[in-house]
Amino acid sequence: MATEDFIASISPAPVEEPESSWGSDPANGADLRFLGVVRGTENGRPILGIEYTCYAAMAEKELTAICRDLLRAHPGHKVLIHHRIGFVSAGVASLVIRVRTPHSAEAFDLAREYLKRIKSTVPVWKTVRFQNA
Amino acid sequence: MATEDFIASISPAPVEEPESSWGSDPANGADLRFLGVVRGTENGRPILGIEYTCYAAMAEKELTAICRDLLRAHPGHKVLIHHRIGFVSAGVASLVIRVRTPHSAEAFDLAREYLKRIKSTVPVWKTVRFQNA
Repeated sequence: MATEDFIASISPAPVEEPESSWGSDPANGADLRFLGVVRGTENGRPILGIEYTCYAAMAEKELTAICRDLLRAHPGHKVLIHHRIGFVSAGVASLVIRVRTPHSAEAFDLAREYLKRIKSTVPVWKTVRFQNA
Repeated sequence: MATEDFIASISPAPVEEPESSWGSDPANGADLRFLGVVRGTENGRPILGIEYTCYAAMAEKELTAICRDLLRAHPGHKVLIHHRIGFVSAGVASLVIRVRTPHSAEAFDLAREYLKRIKSTVPVWKTVRFQNA
């Protein structure tokens, strides 16, 4: 889902992909990007990566609802969110949240709020793939 | 100045330049990047951009001190900071702060703290270049 104010997607595409088409924006002095990266260990054991699965339609609908809701509450910002699904290797990002606002304080507050809501309401499941498993 | 934990620089190079050599990091699940972007207007008047000047040696020393101080207070994170100087066009970033931490909450707190300290202590001056001036 994409409007003038937000892009929200869930797909096997790398997180860099939706970002590449998000041009510059001289209206906003703050551009904050959070990347959620797959860590190399799980409970101390080295892993190859994580397999992410979801009901794509439901997850994308939920992501879109979060964007619409926060844009209504805090008009005037722009946001791009992409959750990668399928297998993501250790050290690679599975989630990007990018927020643009006129000033920095609101960018930090909003990105944090997007992250909190995504974690609590978007239905994505993880399966850890261990090395030599 | 660059160590294993931080890169801090001030130069006319675009902010993308120091970032390009900062590889992946499977130890840290959160990778937060703040970009300070030159806005297209100043008090409602369109501008071409901003000319940044500094005493490079003093500014870089101050940046390095901020990094060492916050790394001592919050060990285990990584940080990259670059302040671009010279002329920077509207819509282009003049500052990047990138913080990597195991978890997301500390990345937000630290990036914010770096930004606050840079704004208050690193001596960089701005001259706005208006259109048709």
